[in-house]
Amino acid sequence: MRVPLEQEITRRVRAFQQLLKENEIDGALLVQNADQIYFTGTCQQAHLYIPAEGRPIYMVRRDVQRAAADARGCTVVPLRSFREIKDIIANAGLRLPERLGLEFDVLPLAYYRQYEKNLHPFLPVDCSPLVRKLRAVKSPLELENLRMAARIMDQVMAEVPEFLVPGATEVELAGLFEARARRLGHEGFVRMRGINAEVFYGHFLSGPSAAVTSGFDGVVGGPGLSPAFPYGPGKREVRSGEPVLIDYPGVWQGYIVDITRIFVVGSLDKELVRAHEVALEIQAALMRAAKPGVKCGELWEEARTLAARAALERHFMGYHNPVYFVGHGVGLELNDLPVLAAGDPTPLEEGMVIALEPKFVFPDRGVVGIENTFVVRREGLERLTNFPDQVHYVRPPA
Amino acid sequence: MRVPLEQEITRRVRAFQQLLKENEIDGALLVQNADQIYFTGTCQQAHLYIPAEGRPIYMVRRDVQRAAADARGCTVVPLRSFREIKDIIANAGLRLPERLGLEFDVLPLAYYRQYEKNLHPFLPVDCSPLVRKLRAVKSPLELENLRMAARIMDQVMAEVPEFLVPGATEVELAGLFEARARRLGHEGFVRMRGINAEVFYGHFLSGPSAAVTSGFDGVVGGPGLSPAFPYGPGKREVRSGEPVLIDYPGVWQGYIVDITRIFVVGSLDKELVRAHEVALEIQAALMRAAKPGVKCGELWEEARTLAARAALERHFMGYHNPVYFVGHGVGLELNDLPVLAAGDPTPLEEGMVIALEPKFVFPDRGVVGIENTFVVRREGLERLTNFPDQVHYVRPPA
Repeated sequence: MRVPLEQEITRRVRAFQQLLKENEIDGALLVQNADQIYFTGTCQQAHLYIPAEGRPIYMVRRDVQRAAADARGCTVVPLRSFREIKDIIANAGLRLPERLGLEFDVLPLAYYRQYEKNLHPFLPVDCSPLVRKLRAVKSPLELENLRMAARIMDQVMAEVPEFLVPGATEVELAGLFEARARRLGHEGFVRMRGINAEVFYGHFLSGPSAAVTSGFDGVVGGPGLSPAFPYGPGKREVRSGEPVLIDYPGVWQGYIVDITRIFVVGSLDKELVRAHEVALEIQAALMRAAKPGVKCGELWEEARTLAARAALERHFMGYHNPVYFVGHGVGLELNDLPVLAAGDPTPLEEGMVIALEPKFVFPDRGVVGIENTFVVRREGLERLTNFPDQVHYVRPPA
Repeated sequence: MRVPLEQEITRRVRAFQQLLKENEIDGALLVQNADQIYFTGTCQQAHLYIPAEGRPIYMVRRDVQRAAADARGCTVVPLRSFREIKDIIANAGLRLPERLGLEFDVLPLAYYRQYEKNLHPFLPVDCSPLVRKLRAVKSPLELENLRMAARIMDQVMAEVPEFLVPGATEVELAGLFEARARRLGHEGFVRMRGINAEVFYGHFLSGPSAAVTSGFDGVVGGPGLSPAFPYGPGKREVRSGEPVLIDYPGVWQGYIVDITRIFVVGSLDKELVRAHEVALEIQAALMRAAKPGVKCGELWEEARTLAARAALERHFMGYHNPVYFVGHGVGLELNDLPVLAAGDPTPLEEGMVIALEPKFVFPDRGVVGIENTFVVRREGLERLTNFPDQVHYVRPPA
């Protein structure tokens, strides 16, 4: 059942306050956009103070008017300087925090030093793991947004045969794909947590391009257009007979799904076709195995074992520089928790949303495999992205 | 004259080392992508150590192979853990830094704490201002990239009449504009320095949409598609008789130019036409005034005075939430130095690249004005973006 945003945000804040209390944190100062959105419904140039008890204060440098219109469940106050934070908290009748929660993974050192200078002495405690843990489990309202994001991507994938022609460059085709996504309401910007976590839309990569490794923490890197943006589509022209990998996040109202499909102009080598089928078998096995309580690391192990049994372990999740996860949470960030990584003991929980992405990398030939986004239900996985999983063959021009 | 990248990077590193010595900094650990690119030619998941004397060490977590192929003027070494940094520096025969330069404005607290734990005791010194100061003055090689970025944007602006029709939504038109830019090699991702400095391509905003304020540090905000991405184009349908503002950075090999043009389907209200003309007069005055040695604040003051003389000061650079600058540096980041801001005593220097953007905001009606990117030459400004400045009228469909 759908609840109004205000009520939902109040529930989120209360759940976070419970975690703060359990960790003896007196309050948290949050700045990262994704975290702001989760606890207010929007993001501004602002510092959000959530006390362990009491109403959150949204201290907004810019734009106060927008914040007042869009933010829920908090008191919006203008902020001109770091110096005012202390008084704003005190004037709200709140005790100044001794143990202060901060987002260690994203908080710039300059902000931290300003807090140190302008608040009273406090002990910093990393509260990013708490926020991320909470954000991992999605509500019905969040699932609605994720469903819309999935519908956009299903639709755009279905349109690919309309414009995929050999001879066009990856980046040109990426632009056409993206324009169609945008027309359907794709929000464009894909948030990923962490410094330098630059995502530009996604990967539209042909043949060997998809096997080019990069600094990006994923199976697929891509050459990019220059060493100054060394990931994603490049200038390669799509050729017949090679796998064209389209790995794109979709975004609707801040919520991200992840989907990958393989298209081929003409026909595809048998070995790659078989590897794609193995990826689908791994996906099917993970769909059977994944349910609340199952550990993330077990799912990785199952996937790896099946890849090994098919004599494809060498190609699984990378070749020269593989990754050791077969899936990851998605939501307000592309790298939401959990990560289905080797040895990860985190159990799946009802309401988590995960992208499963078994893929096989063949240097000099390309990448095949699949990615879909699922929500964890009591009885197992429910699929959000629904475009058919098979390799999609596009007729070469006559 | 064009110099090879390796030679250029060696020159940049030496200039930075000179600044380090002048500030008694023993070495700097840089992580931000734009700074990595400036001093190595590429960016990876990496920490770049630049000693005050000696060869930089590029410690790369991922992807070492790409780094080895693309990086110049440094020694590339693999890095598995923060713990190794100390030994890597020592093994290179370098003294461990006592005063260590760090990018305070962007370095995550978690990294800082890892440095604290795994290096020896050091005094942190903010070296972002030094890097940014150095990066403000562009070399001939950098200007080549900026020229290409400008050429792309000039070309795409010229194509706008081919697809601008009333009834289409801002976001749909943005998608078409972006696809054309991408086909010409626009790199897509627009880097802006600072936490939450999210830029998605640019602004394609019609009438009152362009006057919507936002958390974005600029004249123009825009509604965005939802409170989760509250800037940029929204769902408004373009109408005849209103100014359509297209304010887009262009990116080539990491280098960014900024350009704004106004298009109108049909005709435009006289008051807005006049305001646009005043913006062009301000641009012309700034072009006459701007040369090496002139202070940024003086240029702001000149622009503001001309706006006031035209009885348009109330609308200048915003209405409900104006900004107090009339231009800004561009380069590897959209917010490179300098800023042509009220009271800023920074003198222009030969080789700086600045975007001048006098604009007038009319709530409920829209935004008019101009933005072009210029390089500061000994004798004055040289223009990089060249598409005509006037309001561009598109014929309404019959």
